[in-house]
Amino acid sequence: MTTPTAAILIIGNEILSGRTHDVNIQYLSVNLNKLGIHVNEARIIRDEESKIIETVRHLSATHTYVFTTGGIGATHDDITAACVARAFDRNLIQHPEIVQILKEHYADRLNEARLRMALVPEGSILINNPTSKVPAFQIENVFCLAGIPLVMRSMFETLIPRLNQGPKIFQKTLTCALTENTIADDLATIQTEFPEVEIGSYPFFNPSGEFGVSLVLRSTSLDLLEKSIDKVMTLVKRYVSEWKVE
Amino acid sequence: MTTPTAAILIIGNEILSGRTHDVNIQYLSVNLNKLGIHVNEARIIRDEESKIIETVRHLSATHTYVFTTGGIGATHDDITAACVARAFDRNLIQHPEIVQILKEHYADRLNEARLRMALVPEGSILINNPTSKVPAFQIENVFCLAGIPLVMRSMFETLIPRLNQGPKIFQKTLTCALTENTIADDLATIQTEFPEVEIGSYPFFNPSGEFGVSLVLRSTSLDLLEKSIDKVMTLVKRYVSEWKVE
Repeated sequence: MTTPTAAILIIGNEILSGRTHDVNIQYLSVNLNKLGIHVNEARIIRDEESKIIETVRHLSATHTYVFTTGGIGATHDDITAACVARAFDRNLIQHPEIVQILKEHYADRLNEARLRMALVPEGSILINNPTSKVPAFQIENVFCLAGIPLVMRSMFETLIPRLNQGPKIFQKTLTCALTENTIADDLATIQTEFPEVEIGSYPFFNPSGEFGVSLVLRSTSLDLLEKSIDKVMTLVKRYVSEWKVE
Repeated sequence: MTTPTAAILIIGNEILSGRTHDVNIQYLSVNLNKLGIHVNEARIIRDEESKIIETVRHLSATHTYVFTTGGIGATHDDITAACVARAFDRNLIQHPEIVQILKEHYADRLNEARLRMALVPEGSILINNPTSKVPAFQIENVFCLAGIPLVMRSMFETLIPRLNQGPKIFQKTLTCALTENTIADDLATIQTEFPEVEIGSYPFFNPSGEFGVSLVLRSTSLDLLEKSIDKVMTLVKRYVSEWKVE
Protein backbone atom coordinates (compact mmCIF):
# COMPACT_ATOMS: atom_id res chain seq x y z
CA MET A 1 0.00 0.00 0.00
CA THR A 2 1.80 3.13 -1.16
CA THR A 3 1.17 6.55 0.32
CA PRO A 4 -0.52 9.02 -2.04
CA THR A 5 0.83 12.58 -1.94
CA ALA A 6 -0.94 15.91 -2.23
CA ALA A 7 -0.17 19.56 -2.87
CA ILE A 8 -2.47 22.40 -1.82
CA LEU A 9 -2.66 25.50 -4.01
CA ILE A 10 -4.44 28.59 -2.67
CA ILE A 11 -5.20 31.09 -5.44
CA GLY A 12 -5.96 34.65 -4.38
CA ASN A 13 -4.42 38.09 -3.92
CA GLU A 14 -6.49 38.62 -0.76
CA ILE A 15 -4.34 36.14 1.19
CA LEU A 16 -1.05 37.70 0.06
CA SER A 17 -2.22 41.22 0.82
CA GLY A 18 -2.89 40.01 4.37
CA ARG A 19 -6.56 41.00 4.15
CA THR A 20 -7.84 37.44 4.51
CA HIS A 21 -6.39 34.84 6.84
CA ASP A 22 -6.33 31.51 5.02
CA VAL A 23 -7.98 28.64 6.88
CA ASN A 24 -8.26 26.22 3.95
CA ILE A 25 -4.68 24.92 4.19
CA GLN A 26 -5.21 23.64 7.71
CA TYR A 27 -8.60 22.08 6.94
CA LEU A 28 -7.24 20.26 3.88
CA SER A 29 -4.04 19.22 5.70
CA VAL A 30 -5.92 17.73 8.64
CA ASN A 31 -8.42 15.90 6.45
CA LEU A 32 -5.97 14.61 3.83
CA ASN A 33 -3.69 13.27 6.56
CA LYS A 34 -6.70 11.49 8.10
CA LEU A 35 -7.12 9.70 4.76
CA GLY A 36 -3.46 8.63 4.77
CA ILE A 37 -2.62 11.15 2.05
CA HIS A 38 0.73 12.83 2.67
CA VAL A 39 0.62 16.61 2.16
CA ASN A 40 4.00 17.52 0.67
CA GLU A 41 3.63 21.22 0.18
CA ALA A 42 1.23 24.15 0.04
CA ARG A 43 1.51 27.29 -2.04
CA ILE A 44 -0.35 30.60 -2.09
CA ILE A 45 -0.16 32.46 -5.39
CA ARG A 46 -1.72 35.56 -6.94
CA ASP A 47 -4.53 35.71 -9.52
CA GLU A 48 -2.02 35.79 -12.38
CA GLU A 49 -2.60 33.67 -15.44
CA SER A 50 0.95 32.53 -16.24
CA LYS A 51 1.72 31.82 -12.58
CA ILE A 52 -1.42 29.69 -12.13
CA ILE A 53 -0.78 27.71 -15.33
CA GLU A 54 2.87 27.02 -14.52
CA THR A 55 2.16 26.11 -10.87
CA VAL A 56 -0.76 23.76 -11.67
CA ARG A 57 1.35 21.95 -14.29
CA HIS A 58 4.27 21.55 -11.91
CA LEU A 59 2.26 20.39 -8.89
CA SER A 60 0.09 18.05 -10.97
CA ALA A 61 3.17 16.36 -12.42
CA THR A 62 4.84 15.89 -9.02
CA HIS A 63 1.95 14.80 -6.74
CA THR A 64 -0.79 12.19 -6.71
CA TYR A 65 -3.40 14.92 -6.11
CA VAL A 66 -3.59 18.70 -6.24
CA PHE A 67 -6.31 20.67 -4.43
CA THR A 68 -6.82 24.29 -5.45
CA THR A 69 -9.10 26.76 -3.70
CA GLY A 70 -10.32 30.13 -4.94
CA GLY A 71 -10.96 31.94 -8.20
CA ILE A 72 -13.94 29.91 -9.43
CA GLY A 73 -16.68 32.55 -9.16
CA ALA A 74 -18.09 34.84 -11.83
CA THR A 75 -16.10 38.07 -11.42
CA HIS A 76 -13.19 39.35 -13.52
CA ASP A 77 -10.63 38.12 -10.95
CA ASP A 78 -11.95 34.52 -11.09
CA ILE A 79 -9.60 32.95 -13.63
CA THR A 80 -8.91 29.50 -12.17
CA ALA A 81 -11.06 27.48 -14.64
CA ALA A 82 -9.56 29.20 -17.70
CA CYS A 83 -6.00 28.80 -16.39
CA VAL A 84 -6.43 25.14 -15.41
CA ALA A 85 -7.89 24.44 -18.88
CA ARG A 86 -4.76 25.99 -20.41
CA ALA A 87 -2.49 24.07 -18.02
CA PHE A 88 -3.89 20.83 -19.49
CA ASP A 89 -4.32 22.13 -23.08
CA ARG A 90 -8.10 21.70 -22.88
CA ASN A 91 -10.83 23.93 -24.21
CA LEU A 92 -12.97 25.84 -21.75
CA ILE A 93 -16.53 24.59 -22.35
CA GLN A 94 -19.96 25.41 -20.97
CA HIS A 95 -20.98 22.34 -18.99
CA PRO A 96 -24.65 21.45 -19.67
CA GLU A 97 -25.20 20.00 -16.18
CA ILE A 98 -24.00 23.22 -14.53
CA VAL A 99 -26.15 25.30 -16.91
CA GLN A 100 -29.17 23.24 -15.80
CA ILE A 101 -28.35 23.79 -12.11
CA LEU A 102 -27.92 27.53 -12.71
CA LYS A 103 -31.26 27.71 -14.53
CA GLU A 104 -33.04 26.01 -11.66
CA HIS A 105 -31.24 28.05 -9.01
CA TYR A 106 -31.42 31.51 -10.56
CA ALA A 107 -34.50 31.20 -12.82
CA ASP A 108 -35.06 34.61 -14.47
CA ARG A 109 -32.12 36.12 -12.55
CA LEU A 110 -29.71 34.07 -14.66
CA ASN A 111 -27.42 36.58 -16.37
CA GLU A 112 -24.26 36.48 -18.51
CA ALA A 113 -21.98 36.66 -15.49
CA ARG A 114 -23.73 33.81 -13.69
CA LEU A 115 -23.56 31.66 -16.84
CA ARG A 116 -19.76 32.00 -16.75
CA MET A 117 -19.82 29.76 -13.67
CA ALA A 118 -20.73 26.91 -16.06
CA LEU A 119 -17.35 27.18 -17.82
CA VAL A 120 -15.00 24.30 -17.00
CA PRO A 121 -12.09 22.57 -18.78
CA GLU A 122 -13.33 20.03 -21.36
CA GLY A 123 -13.41 16.54 -19.84
CA SER A 124 -13.91 17.74 -16.27
CA ILE A 125 -15.71 15.63 -13.69
CA LEU A 126 -18.00 17.82 -11.60
CA ILE A 127 -17.68 18.21 -7.82
CA ASN A 128 -20.99 18.68 -6.00
CA ASN A 129 -21.62 21.81 -3.99
CA PRO A 130 -24.04 20.99 -1.15
CA THR A 131 -23.77 24.54 0.27
CA SER A 132 -24.43 26.95 -2.59
CA LYS A 133 -25.37 24.67 -5.50
CA VAL A 134 -22.92 25.63 -8.30
CA PRO A 135 -20.54 22.65 -8.77
CA ALA A 136 -16.76 22.83 -8.91
CA PHE A 137 -14.67 20.50 -11.11
CA GLN A 138 -11.91 17.92 -11.23
CA ILE A 139 -9.62 17.64 -14.24
CA GLU A 140 -7.08 14.80 -14.23
CA ASN A 141 -5.56 14.77 -10.72
CA VAL A 142 -6.47 18.40 -9.95
CA PHE A 143 -9.52 19.25 -7.79
CA CYS A 144 -10.58 22.89 -8.11
CA LEU A 145 -12.62 23.94 -5.09
CA ALA A 146 -14.28 27.16 -3.94
CA GLY A 147 -12.34 29.61 -1.76
CA ILE A 148 -15.12 30.27 0.77
CA PRO A 149 -14.27 27.87 3.64
CA LEU A 150 -17.84 26.68 4.26
CA VAL A 151 -18.37 25.88 0.57
CA MET A 152 -14.91 24.35 0.12
CA ARG A 153 -15.42 21.98 3.04
CA SER A 154 -18.74 20.68 1.79
CA MET A 155 -17.23 20.13 -1.68
CA PHE A 156 -14.26 18.27 -0.21
CA GLU A 157 -16.53 15.90 1.72
CA THR A 158 -18.34 14.89 -1.46
CA LEU A 159 -15.13 14.01 -3.33
CA ILE A 160 -13.54 11.79 -0.65
CA PRO A 161 -14.80 8.55 -2.33
CA ARG A 162 -12.71 9.46 -5.44
CA LEU A 163 -9.43 9.48 -3.49
CA ASN A 164 -7.08 6.55 -3.04
CA GLN A 165 -6.35 6.40 0.65
CA GLY A 166 -2.94 5.50 2.08
CA PRO A 167 -2.04 3.58 5.21
CA LYS A 168 -3.41 5.27 8.34
CA ILE A 169 -0.95 7.61 10.05
CA PHE A 170 -0.92 7.28 13.85
CA GLN A 171 0.15 10.23 15.96
CA LYS A 172 1.04 10.89 19.58
CA THR A 173 2.00 14.23 21.10
CA LEU A 174 3.87 14.60 24.38
CA THR A 175 3.78 18.10 25.87
CA CYS A 176 5.84 19.24 28.87
CA ALA A 177 7.46 22.35 30.37
CA LEU A 178 11.00 21.77 29.06
CA THR A 179 13.08 23.86 26.68
CA GLU A 180 13.71 21.64 23.67
CA ASN A 181 17.47 22.07 23.61
CA THR A 182 17.75 20.33 27.00
CA ILE A 183 16.81 17.04 25.36
CA ALA A 184 17.89 17.74 21.76
CA ASP A 185 20.79 15.25 21.59
CA ASP A 186 18.89 12.38 23.21
CA LEU A 187 15.87 13.06 21.02
CA ALA A 188 18.09 12.87 17.92
CA THR A 189 19.29 9.46 19.14
CA ILE A 190 15.69 8.23 19.42
CA GLN A 191 14.94 9.59 15.90
CA THR A 192 17.95 7.64 14.54
CA GLU A 193 16.75 4.48 16.29
CA PHE A 194 13.23 4.84 14.82
CA PRO A 195 13.62 6.03 11.20
CA GLU A 196 10.02 5.00 10.45
CA VAL A 197 8.67 7.39 13.07
CA GLU A 198 8.71 11.10 12.19
CA ILE A 199 9.64 12.98 15.37
CA GLY A 200 9.03 16.73 15.44
CA SER A 201 9.97 19.06 18.27
CA TYR A 202 7.84 22.21 18.55
CA PRO A 203 8.72 24.69 21.28
CA PHE A 204 6.08 27.15 22.40
CA PHE A 205 6.37 30.45 24.14
CA ASN A 206 3.59 32.91 24.74
CA PRO A 207 3.19 36.42 26.12
CA SER A 208 1.96 35.16 29.51
CA GLY A 209 5.36 33.52 30.01
CA GLU A 210 4.14 29.94 29.47
CA PHE A 211 6.76 27.87 27.68
CA GLY A 212 7.48 24.27 26.83
CA VAL A 213 7.74 21.81 24.01
CA SER A 214 5.39 19.53 22.11
CA LEU A 215 7.06 16.39 20.80
CA VAL A 216 4.99 15.00 17.93
CA LEU A 217 5.55 11.41 16.82
CA ARG A 218 3.90 10.12 13.65
CA SER A 219 4.09 6.73 11.98
CA THR A 220 2.08 4.28 9.95
CA SER A 221 3.22 1.61 12.44
CA LEU A 222 1.33 1.76 15.74
CA ASP A 223 3.84 -0.65 17.27
CA LEU A 224 6.87 1.52 16.43
CA LEU A 225 4.96 4.62 17.52
CA GLU A 226 4.30 3.11 20.95
CA LYS A 227 7.88 1.90 21.38
CA SER A 228 9.29 5.30 20.45
CA ILE A 229 6.89 7.32 22.65
CA ASP A 230 7.95 5.08 25.59
CA LYS A 231 11.57 6.11 24.96
CA VAL A 232 10.57 9.77 24.79
CA MET A 233 8.67 9.47 28.10
CA THR A 234 11.70 7.88 29.76
CA LEU A 235 13.78 10.78 28.45
CA VAL A 236 11.58 13.64 29.69
CA LYS A 237 11.14 11.89 33.07
CA ARG A 238 14.81 12.72 33.78
CA TYR A 239 13.93 16.43 33.82
CA VAL A 240 10.25 16.89 34.64
CA SER A 241 7.66 15.04 36.71
CA GLU A 242 4.63 16.12 34.65
CA TRP A 243 3.75 15.69 31.00
CA LYS A 244 0.72 15.07 28.85
CA VAL A 245 0.42 12.52 26.04
CA GLU A 246 -2.48 12.76 23.62
CA MET B 1 10.43 54.29 -7.05
CA THR B 2 10.12 50.61 -7.92
CA THR B 3 8.12 48.15 -5.84
CA PRO B 4 10.22 45.52 -4.04
CA THR B 5 8.81 41.99 -4.05
CA ALA B 6 8.83 39.29 -1.40
CA ALA B 7 8.27 35.56 -1.02
CA ILE B 8 7.37 33.91 2.29
CA LEU B 9 8.67 30.41 2.97
CA ILE B 10 7.28 28.48 5.95
CA ILE B 11 9.45 25.47 6.81
CA GLY B 12 7.87 22.76 8.96
CA ASN B 13 6.10 19.42 8.84
CA GLU B 14 3.76 20.52 11.65
CA ILE B 15 1.89 22.88 9.34
CA LEU B 16 1.42 20.29 6.58
CA SER B 17 0.26 17.62 9.03
CA GLY B 18 -2.43 20.08 10.09
CA ARG B 19 -1.27 20.01 13.72
CA THR B 20 -0.28 23.67 13.75
CA HIS B 21 -2.24 26.48 12.13
CA ASP B 22 0.22 28.87 10.51
CA VAL B 23 -0.23 32.50 11.51
CA ASN B 24 3.12 33.79 10.24
CA ILE B 25 2.03 34.18 6.59
CA GLN B 26 -0.68 36.65 7.52
CA TYR B 27 1.53 38.65 9.88
CA LEU B 28 4.31 38.94 7.29
CA SER B 29 1.84 39.71 4.45
CA VAL B 30 0.16 42.53 6.38
CA ASN B 31 3.44 44.06 7.51
CA LEU B 32 5.32 43.74 4.22
CA ASN B 33 2.41 45.33 2.35
CA LYS B 34 2.45 48.21 4.87
CA LEU B 35 6.07 48.81 3.84
CA GLY B 36 5.10 48.89 0.16
CA ILE B 37 6.68 45.47 -0.42
CA HIS B 38 4.58 43.34 -2.77
CA VAL B 39 4.14 39.75 -1.51
CA ASN B 40 4.16 37.58 -4.64
CA GLU B 41 3.81 34.15 -3.16
CA ALA B 42 4.02 32.02 -0.04
CA ARG B 43 5.05 28.40 0.27
CA ILE B 44 4.90 25.84 3.04
CA ILE B 45 7.38 22.98 2.70
CA ARG B 46 8.55 20.04 4.78
CA ASP B 47 11.81 19.74 6.77
CA GLU B 48 13.54 18.09 3.81
CA GLU B 49 17.05 19.11 2.86
CA SER B 50 16.86 19.02 -0.93
CA LYS B 51 13.47 20.71 -0.99
CA ILE B 52 14.61 23.56 1.27
CA ILE B 53 17.81 24.14 -0.75
CA GLU B 54 16.02 24.13 -4.11
CA THR B 55 13.17 26.36 -2.88
CA VAL B 56 15.45 28.93 -1.20
CA ARG B 57 17.57 29.18 -4.38
CA HIS B 58 14.53 29.65 -6.59
CA LEU B 59 12.73 32.20 -4.41
CA SER B 60 15.93 34.17 -3.73
CA ALA B 61 16.62 34.46 -7.46
CA THR B 62 13.10 35.62 -8.31
CA HIS B 63 12.25 38.08 -5.48
CA THR B 64 13.78 41.15 -3.85
CA TYR B 65 13.44 39.50 -0.44
CA VAL B 66 12.69 36.07 0.98
CA PHE B 67 11.46 35.55 4.55
CA THR B 68 11.68 32.04 6.00
CA THR B 69 10.22 30.94 9.32
CA GLY B 70 10.94 27.77 11.27
CA GLY B 71 13.68 25.20 11.67
CA ILE B 72 16.30 27.36 13.39
CA GLY B 73 16.30 25.72 16.84
CA ALA B 74 18.63 23.10 18.26
CA THR B 75 16.81 19.81 17.62
CA HIS B 76 17.44 17.22 14.89
CA ASP B 77 14.55 18.58 12.78
CA ASP B 78 16.00 22.12 12.73
CA ILE B 79 17.91 22.11 9.45
CA THR B 80 17.22 25.57 8.02
CA ALA B 81 20.67 27.10 8.70
CA ALA B 82 22.53 24.14 7.17
CA CYS B 83 20.24 24.06 4.11
CA VAL B 84 20.40 27.83 3.50
CA ALA B 85 24.22 27.67 3.76
CA ARG B 86 24.18 24.98 1.05
CA ALA B 87 21.71 26.95 -1.07
CA PHE B 88 24.32 29.75 -1.25
CA ASP B 89 27.41 27.47 -1.27
CA ARG B 90 28.59 28.87 2.05
CA ASN B 91 30.18 27.08 4.98
CA LEU B 92 28.18 26.70 8.16
CA ILE B 93 30.22 28.49 10.82
CA GLN B 94 29.92 29.04 14.57
CA HIS B 95 29.20 32.77 14.93
CA PRO B 96 31.27 34.26 17.81
CA GLU B 97 28.64 36.87 18.67
CA ILE B 98 25.94 34.21 19.06
CA VAL B 99 28.31 32.04 21.15
CA GLN B 100 28.82 35.03 23.46
CA ILE B 101 25.05 35.57 23.79
CA LEU B 102 24.53 31.86 24.52
CA LYS B 103 27.27 31.91 27.19
CA GLU B 104 25.67 34.87 28.94
CA HIS B 105 22.16 33.45 28.62
CA TYR B 106 22.77 29.82 29.58
CA ALA B 107 25.95 30.11 31.72
CA ASP B 108 26.79 26.59 33.00
CA ARG B 109 23.69 25.16 31.31
CA LEU B 110 25.30 25.72 27.88
CA ASN B 111 25.47 22.29 26.25
CA GLU B 112 26.39 20.90 22.80
CA ALA B 113 22.83 21.19 21.52
CA ARG B 114 22.48 24.81 22.60
CA LEU B 115 25.83 25.66 20.95
CA ARG B 116 24.39 24.45 17.63
CA MET B 117 22.14 27.52 17.68
CA ALA B 118 25.32 29.55 16.95
CA LEU B 119 25.75 27.86 13.55
CA VAL B 120 24.91 30.16 10.62
CA PRO B 121 26.00 30.42 6.97
CA GLU B 122 29.37 32.19 6.63
CA GLY B 123 28.88 35.89 5.88
CA SER B 124 25.48 36.11 7.63
CA ILE B 125 24.27 39.35 9.18
CA LEU B 126 22.59 38.61 12.50
CA ILE B 127 18.95 39.45 13.25
CA ASN B 128 18.29 40.46 16.86
CA ASN B 129 15.89 38.44 18.98
CA PRO B 130 14.32 40.72 21.61
CA THR B 131 12.07 37.91 22.88
CA SER B 132 14.29 34.92 23.60
CA LYS B 133 17.81 36.27 23.00
CA VAL B 134 19.31 33.84 20.41
CA PRO B 135 19.68 35.80 17.12
CA ALA B 136 18.50 34.66 13.71
CA PHE B 137 20.36 35.51 10.50
CA GLN B 138 20.19 37.14 7.08
CA ILE B 139 22.24 35.82 4.17
CA GLU B 140 22.09 37.78 0.91
CA ASN B 141 18.38 38.60 0.36
CA VAL B 142 17.08 35.79 2.60
CA PHE B 143 15.95 36.50 6.18
CA CYS B 144 15.69 33.34 8.30
CA LEU B 145 13.36 33.90 11.24
CA ALA B 146 12.08 31.77 14.11
CA GLY B 147 8.84 29.80 13.71
CA ILE B 148 7.31 30.73 17.08
CA PRO B 149 5.01 33.67 16.19
CA LEU B 150 5.92 35.84 19.18
CA VAL B 151 9.65 35.46 18.51
CA MET B 152 9.29 35.84 14.73
CA ARG B 153 7.37 39.11 15.11
CA SER B 154 9.93 40.68 17.40
CA MET B 155 12.72 39.66 15.00
CA PHE B 156 10.87 41.10 12.02
CA GLU B 157 10.46 44.45 13.75
CA THR B 158 14.20 44.75 14.30
CA LEU B 159 15.05 44.14 10.63
CA ILE B 160 12.63 46.67 9.08
CA PRO B 161 15.37 49.36 8.73
CA ARG B 162 17.27 46.97 6.38
CA LEU B 163 14.41 46.81 3.87
CA ASN B 164 13.93 49.05 0.85
CA GLN B 165 10.37 50.23 1.04
CA GLY B 166 8.14 50.69 -2.02
CA PRO B 167 5.48 53.28 -2.74
CA LYS B 168 2.67 53.14 -0.17
CA ILE B 169 -0.29 50.97 -1.22
CA PHE B 170 -3.68 52.55 -0.44
CA GLN B 171 -6.68 50.29 0.10
CA LYS B 172 -10.43 50.71 0.39
CA THR B 173 -12.96 47.95 1.02
CA LEU B 174 -16.67 48.24 0.24
CA THR B 175 -18.85 45.60 1.88
CA CYS B 176 -22.54 45.04 1.13
CA ALA B 177 -25.20 42.32 1.05
CA LEU B 178 -25.04 41.55 -2.68
CA THR B 179 -24.08 38.33 -4.46
CA GLU B 180 -21.01 39.19 -6.51
CA ASN B 181 -22.33 37.85 -9.79
CA THR B 182 -25.08 40.50 -9.81
CA ILE B 183 -22.46 43.17 -10.46
CA ALA B 184 -19.73 41.06 -12.09
CA ASP B 185 -19.90 42.55 -15.60
CA ASP B 186 -20.06 46.17 -14.45
CA LEU B 187 -17.24 45.56 -12.01
CA ALA B 188 -15.12 44.15 -14.84
CA THR B 189 -15.76 47.36 -16.79
CA ILE B 190 -14.51 49.45 -13.84
CA GLN B 191 -11.42 47.23 -13.58
CA THR B 192 -10.70 47.81 -17.30
CA GLU B 193 -11.13 51.56 -16.84
CA PHE B 194 -8.68 51.60 -13.88
CA PRO B 195 -5.82 49.21 -14.72
CA GLU B 196 -3.67 50.76 -11.96
CA VAL B 197 -6.21 49.82 -9.30
CA GLU B 198 -6.32 46.14 -8.28
CA ILE B 199 -9.99 45.26 -7.74
CA GLY B 200 -10.78 42.04 -5.90
CA SER B 201 -14.24 40.62 -5.29
CA TYR B 202 -14.56 38.39 -2.23
CA PRO B 203 -17.94 36.83 -1.53
CA PHE B 204 -18.67 35.61 1.99
CA PHE B 205 -21.16 33.13 3.26
CA ASN B 206 -21.36 31.78 6.76
CA PRO B 207 -23.32 29.13 8.67
CA SER B 208 -25.70 31.73 10.18
CA GLY B 209 -26.89 32.56 6.65
CA GLU B 210 -25.14 35.93 6.42
CA PHE B 211 -23.89 36.58 2.92
CA GLY B 212 -22.49 39.40 0.83
CA VAL B 213 -19.39 40.60 -0.93
CA SER B 214 -16.31 42.62 -0.03
CA LEU B 215 -14.91 44.63 -2.92
CA VAL B 216 -11.28 45.44 -2.21
CA LEU B 217 -9.57 48.19 -4.20
CA ARG B 218 -5.80 48.70 -3.90
CA SER B 219 -3.52 51.18 -5.62
CA THR B 220 -0.38 53.23 -5.12
CA SER B 221 -2.39 56.21 -6.45
CA LEU B 222 -4.79 57.66 -3.87
CA ASP B 223 -6.43 59.75 -6.60
CA LEU B 224 -7.21 56.74 -8.83
CA LEU B 225 -8.32 54.76 -5.79
CA GLU B 226 -10.86 57.45 -4.87
CA LYS B 227 -12.14 57.80 -8.41
CA SER B 228 -12.61 54.05 -8.77
CA ILE B 229 -14.31 53.56 -5.38
CA ASP B 230 -16.77 56.31 -6.39
CA LYS B 231 -17.66 54.27 -9.49
CA VAL B 232 -18.08 51.14 -7.38
CA MET B 233 -20.39 52.98 -4.95
CA THR B 234 -22.50 54.24 -7.83
CA LEU B 235 -22.74 50.66 -9.08
CA VAL B 236 -23.83 49.02 -5.82
CA LYS B 237 -26.33 51.86 -5.18
CA ARG B 238 -28.39 50.44 -8.05
CA TYR B 239 -29.06 47.29 -6.01
CA VAL B 240 -28.68 48.04 -2.29
CA SER B 241 -29.24 51.04 -0.05
CA GLU B 242 -26.63 50.13 2.56
CA TRP B 243 -22.91 49.51 2.34
CA LYS B 244 -19.80 50.12 4.35
CA VAL B 245 -16.51 51.55 3.08
CA GLU B 246 -13.39 51.25 5.22
